[in-house]
Amino acid sequence: MTSLLLSRRDLDFLLHDWLDAGALTARERFAAHDRETFDAVLDLAQEIAERHFAPHNRSADEHEPRFDGERVHLVPEVAAALEVFAASGLMSAAMDHDLGGQQLPVLVANACMAWFHAANVGTAAYPFLTMANANLLAVYGTPDQRERFVRPLAAGRFFGTMCLSEPQAGSSLADVRTRAEPQPDGRYRLFGTKMWISGGDHELGENIVHLVLARTPGAPAGVKGLSLFAVPKYLVGADGSLGARNDVVLAGLNHKMGYRGTVNTVLNFGEGRHLPDGEPGAVGELVGGLHRGLACMFHMMNEARTGVGLGATALGCTGYLHALEYARSRPQGRPLTGRDAAAPQVPIIEHPDVRRMLLAQKAYVEGALALSLYCSRLIDEQRTAPEPADRAAAGRLLEVLTPIAKSWPAQWCLAANDLAIQVHGGYGYTRDYPVEQFYRDNRLNAIHEGTHGIQALDLLGRKAVQDGGAGLRALLAAFAATTARARELGGGAADFPADPTGDFPADLATDFPANLAAEAGGFADALDAAAVRIGRTTAALWAAGDPEVALPNASVYLEAVGHVVLAWIWLEQYLALGAADTPFHQGKRQAARYFFRVELPRTGPQFDLLDGLDRTAAETDPDWF
Amino acid sequence: MTSLLLSRRDLDFLLHDWLDAGALTARERFAAHDRETFDAVLDLAQEIAERHFAPHNRSADEHEPRFDGERVHLVPEVAAALEVFAASGLMSAAMDHDLGGQQLPVLVANACMAWFHAANVGTAAYPFLTMANANLLAVYGTPDQRERFVRPLAAGRFFGTMCLSEPQAGSSLADVRTRAEPQPDGRYRLFGTKMWISGGDHELGENIVHLVLARTPGAPAGVKGLSLFAVPKYLVGADGSLGARNDVVLAGLNHKMGYRGTVNTVLNFGEGRHLPDGEPGAVGELVGGLHRGLACMFHMMNEARTGVGLGATALGCTGYLHALEYARSRPQGRPLTGRDAAAPQVPIIEHPDVRRMLLAQKAYVEGALALSLYCSRLIDEQRTAPEPADRAAAGRLLEVLTPIAKSWPAQWCLAANDLAIQVHGGYGYTRDYPVEQFYRDNRLNAIHEGTHGIQALDLLGRKAVQDGGAGLRALLAAFAATTARARELGGGAADFPADPTGDFPADLATDFPANLAAEAGGFADALDAAAVRIGRTTAALWAAGDPEVALPNASVYLEAVGHVVLAWIWLEQYLALGAADTPFHQGKRQAARYFFRVELPRTGPQFDLLDGLDRTAAETDPDWF
Repeated sequence: MTSLLLSRRDLDFLLHDWLDAGALTARERFAAHDRETFDAVLDLAQEIAERHFAPHNRSADEHEPRFDGERVHLVPEVAAALEVFAASGLMSAAMDHDLGGQQLPVLVANACMAWFHAANVGTAAYPFLTMANANLLAVYGTPDQRERFVRPLAAGRFFGTMCLSEPQAGSSLADVRTRAEPQPDGRYRLFGTKMWISGGDHELGENIVHLVLARTPGAPAGVKGLSLFAVPKYLVGADGSLGARNDVVLAGLNHKMGYRGTVNTVLNFGEGRHLPDGEPGAVGELVGGLHRGLACMFHMMNEARTGVGLGATALGCTGYLHALEYARSRPQGRPLTGRDAAAPQVPIIEHPDVRRMLLAQKAYVEGALALSLYCSRLIDEQRTAPEPADRAAAGRLLEVLTPIAKSWPAQWCLAANDLAIQVHGGYGYTRDYPVEQFYRDNRLNAIHEGTHGIQALDLLGRKAVQDGGAGLRALLAAFAATTARARELGGGAADFPADPTGDFPADLATDFPANLAAEAGGFADALDAAAVRIGRTTAALWAAGDPEVALPNASVYLEAVGHVVLAWIWLEQYLALGAADTPFHQGKRQAARYFFRVELPRTGPQFDLLDGLDRTAAETDPDWF
Repeated sequence: MTSLLLSRRDLDFLLHDWLDAGALTARERFAAHDRETFDAVLDLAQEIAERHFAPHNRSADEHEPRFDGERVHLVPEVAAALEVFAASGLMSAAMDHDLGGQQLPVLVANACMAWFHAANVGTAAYPFLTMANANLLAVYGTPDQRERFVRPLAAGRFFGTMCLSEPQAGSSLADVRTRAEPQPDGRYRLFGTKMWISGGDHELGENIVHLVLARTPGAPAGVKGLSLFAVPKYLVGADGSLGARNDVVLAGLNHKMGYRGTVNTVLNFGEGRHLPDGEPGAVGELVGGLHRGLACMFHMMNEARTGVGLGATALGCTGYLHALEYARSRPQGRPLTGRDAAAPQVPIIEHPDVRRMLLAQKAYVEGALALSLYCSRLIDEQRTAPEPADRAAAGRLLEVLTPIAKSWPAQWCLAANDLAIQVHGGYGYTRDYPVEQFYRDNRLNAIHEGTHGIQALDLLGRKAVQDGGAGLRALLAAFAATTARARELGGGAADFPADPTGDFPADLATDFPANLAAEAGGFADALDAAAVRIGRTTAALWAAGDPEVALPNASVYLEAVGHVVLAWIWLEQYLALGAADTPFHQGKRQAARYFFRVELPRTGPQFDLLDGLDRTAAETDPDWF
């Protein structure tokens, strides 16, 4: 039986036929790997996800983490699953050999993580956060911190959190109030309350390393005064041994609509409890230099946000596969013509409206998966491309794509989960089927790690304009490279612009049939036209150089540009399909057609609205609501 | 404090300034009423909803109905609330005096029900279903059945259900298998399993009257062979006294994502339990004649579906009001210009993106409320307009509007609830705030009482074409009457077509300022253009006369036509606002602008797709997924 979590066939296509993962093994960092080790680790991820994560997805949702005043209790399957996960080495899949890692490409490591998000996003959050934490400390930590923190994190002995938000400061990090007081020994004592901390307390592993944004005495106001601190639940001695319980206190749990398997906490730092010296303040170590807190966080932001998008995508994928299985097996109704009540009912996949809902899901989730993996590949390029110029180019493209790679799956893979419920009808609305949980779980992804609105400001207010618009130009150049390749298939293109993405995608098949070449040319025309609109609209929005003019409809801009990016991703996939005509290839092509025919045209009215500098909402007086 | 359930100000505007509810009191049926009694019953509904329904909305969600093998247990507040509700007379608000009813217009009765849906949709479902049941029996029951069933239903002593679906027959009623065997005494014995029965078993009231679709021996196959039966939980004697427990057995409860306060059941009829004669089969009485089951159901369908749309709307309204309150009180961040971190944070309503999300919600929920009440008014017209031609005209318009009045709020007021969560940020995703429940509850409304896809087939496959397209022509004529009125304000219109909706809306203010008249004219132009597209697209879809050509994108058609209908409804409201410029009036106008500028243009690509007879999904081979 094929998996109901992800399509391995599609993953293989994306990794190998399109993103040419094998080419990475020519680089020194990945020299220990080849296609076989990539395939083996994907097999391993799938097996652990299916055997140890998926079976308790519902149970962990139904039996939320519970705090008895002393400890947090999770369903026991969480710890069991994470032990298997840690033992597999997946916690450090992409990390350096010298920290115990496997030094896999981020591309492959993220493809592995997708299995866990699809199987059980609540349990997968623990390693997901731990890896993000470890990666940050691996870059910014001292050699000593790498030994004492990163190594046990990478081994799965410690878990990690990210402590940014506070009750009064969610999206507005400038308002973080947690204080860090320097101590004579070079360490700090922290005081404050952190909110929405996933994995903030539990009995998994031996320790929890909190990475905490806080403000030192006399620091500048706003985000420029923030520093980052490693604050372990149990102090870690110079030799790595565990010491006293730190002054970090679980103040309470948040109870959510979804993601219920992930304990979500309010943490108080510096209540004056636990530490043997009786002095209040949680002991923390500075990471990455004074007032460099936000810079450190931002360094990891592209990966974290791509990861959130990947999680949203994985939920979309598994919802789609469940809906597909249901549609193939559930008899109900008869064809639009031939409504003879005496004839047997047909499987609902025979109904055009059900097929429409399945094809839309396929276009959303496979498009999102391709985008997520493309961004993962860019992270590898940014780190390991042989030429500095290629690294810089990949970084530029990654910067501009990141808000889309985060927000687009959060929006459209949630829409896919909505359709998955609809395909199931009444059954899909019950807790006897998993799709309602996917929908509840996925709703978080437009909120955490920067809301939809924050991503929109990031794209239009920063990424589209910084460095004189270099990011946006890189994006449009990537589009142009793809459309030129598409046109070349039909013998049309004279000028083939340099591909800004280096040595991938893989070379195109040379035997592209004429009808497919013509279709690709049509898609290229549509994408080129949309790209022109992006350029024109961006210029119109910023013509006055005034954020109050440019940004009120930033969310509409994010959504419109996101849809164009996905059209590009679908054209890329279409080209990578070559001439093959298996059902898999036919289905991918059909999803590409769906995207160009049904989805891309949605952007027309959005660009129109933006071009008109619409101020309807901005000019609505608060008293008028 | 203003209510967080509904805006009474908006209700008053819709009922009186727009729909001229007072004019109905000139009709004999409503002669006992006047504006004061209308206002008083709305006050009463609001008070009971706020005091007795809203307080246990969360508790009923958290403590689902439980079946101990013998009885169903609900949180006790449900019974207490329903006792107050029944004592208030609201159960029979629109019913005939001779059945104990108050003979209020459906318009006013539905406005009352909106308070209960907004306060607690799970508890409101019990009276909602009971009223639908009683209304059907009042029309199709014998005088004896009216006495024995309808009178106690109307008094709130009995509760009612609708038993249509079966495990193998949800949308496909042709496949209903429940059998009804005639007995020598003229009654029937029923055998079968019914699924998704809301309110199917509980200890509220004295009895439950199930209205059951079943098939008699030798009946034709398909829906034409269905008959309707009243099957009480306890038999009802000739004098109305309660007798033996009937052979209706609760087989189990369904556990849903939302609507968790409403017990949802699987019922077995005819297990051979309970009845003293030991014979199996649930005793039922035929209602409305042999093989007339679906016709009876369909007679009530417009009301039931409008009611579902109203429930979706009410959830959207309360979500919007909660988001608005949160946005006004939650400080976070600073203006786009002036990001001085030392300055105090501003309430988030100051952020353009938050205002955008609030205005979108306002446009959706107030548009949906207006549409729901307009349809309610049409039900009154259909029943009580003095001229038979007006009654027929109202009926035609109601028929074509019903699938939209059901589906549009289910889709867009859910979208409003999604935005309400987003305005709350992380808090909105927790169960400490009510908006996540509204979102879960509202997700049902695109499924029950005919899925979105079923409504789409009803609109494009039936309502748009039956009687030679009379329904669609009525809709386009209603648009034209509105746009002519809009243009007349600017002195433009020479030809003023007859208004097909009789004596409402209320007469327009004569002092419409020139700038507003010009704006109304612009909206009228846009609506006229959209109406042309509806006509052209419908003709294109049916040009071949082939359902397989016309119907594959019926859902897109439903959504596009729905958006045009809402633009019309917003223009209607805009006109009814007259020249007043209070904040309330300004806000309504702004929502109308939002709808015309942001929402109506979405339909362009949808009509384009339909005009091209797109077959992308229809031609996707099931093996390609």
